[in-house]
Amino acid sequence: MPRSGAAARDRLERAALELYRERGYDQTTIAEIAARAGVTQRTFFRHFGDKREVLFHIELRQQRALAAALADVPAAAPPLTAVLLAFRSMAPGMEINRALAEARHHVIAATPALRERELAKAAALSIVVADALRGRGLPPWRATLLAEVSTAALGHAVHTWVADASADLDALIVRAFTELRAFADVTVPSA
Amino acid sequence: MPRSGAAARDRLERAALELYRERGYDQTTIAEIAARAGVTQRTFFRHFGDKREVLFHIELRQQRALAAALADVPAAAPPLTAVLLAFRSMAPGMEINRALAEARHHVIAATPALRERELAKAAALSIVVADALRGRGLPPWRATLLAEVSTAALGHAVHTWVADASADLDALIVRAFTELRAFADVTVPSA
Repeated sequence: MPRSGAAARDRLERAALELYRERGYDQTTIAEIAARAGVTQRTFFRHFGDKREVLFHIELRQQRALAAALADVPAAAPPLTAVLLAFRSMAPGMEINRALAEARHHVIAATPALRERELAKAAALSIVVADALRGRGLPPWRATLLAEVSTAALGHAVHTWVADASADLDALIVRAFTELRAFADVTVPSA
Repeated sequence: MPRSGAAARDRLERAALELYRERGYDQTTIAEIAARAGVTQRTFFRHFGDKREVLFHIELRQQRALAAALADVPAAAPPLTAVLLAFRSMAPGMEINRALAEARHHVIAATPALRERELAKAAALSIVVADALRGRGLPPWRATLLAEVSTAALGHAVHTWVADASADLDALIVRAFTELRAFADVTVPSA
């Protein structure tokens, strides 16, 4: 059993999510999480401040992965195409961790006190995208708008994927961005 | 002073929002809200279950207004054009109630326990739009996606408007939908 370091942290995350799902978030103790992960409570507290922070940590990893993916898209790609490429590049990693995503989703849906996390998560991803879009030369207002709309579309793809074990996340992300082309047909007043 | 009915409810709403903003949400009592509105606490409880429900009521009115506006757009209008028209039709009423919107925004931003309301509000408006889009013949997945994206765009327009007393909400809504045309230029894999 790993005693510390990244391997222990990963085990603690998985153990916590399993227990939150099995017993409910409120009913799970840190002692139980540590026991299932095969580490001491002291090791838990080396990695996480409390039960809630375990959920936060997964989100932080996703934010970092998204920022890295956005930075990796060549500067020549148009801004929204860069966002789509970055979102798609995250899909394989999320497919591998489907069980974690499912557990996290169920725990949050079943725990009213945690729902604010969903808001915070979407907001954090949106900020990462807006930063990248500004870095690609978009004016701030447009960058924030397109970031919020893009992450809303990503959220719809991810929710569909979490709810359907046979769904392909990458295909859903592509489908969402394809559907958004419909905005080109909206009649807007000429400036 | 109105003792009951819609006029008393409106006075209670305004009094509550003023007090939440002046003193903070947690520090405001129902007795103070009733006193400022010139009604009894019993009248407060005829209209609202608790302090939180005052904020909820404004949202409910907006949801109903949006549903009515969507129903009023002629069936011949394309779905997203109908959404834009419905959003725009709400702008004059929101401009009239700018002070309420500003107060509500500040109270929620200053009260962590209320932030979930922002999530709930956006989700409720999105459901209203998705229902209308399905009613206009869109398949459910697309209806939900376009509803979430449209309400995210509306949210960006409203947040900009609330933060800038010189901003024109209708112009911001039009600007947001105009910017969303950029999704037409995204390179997506052919099906």
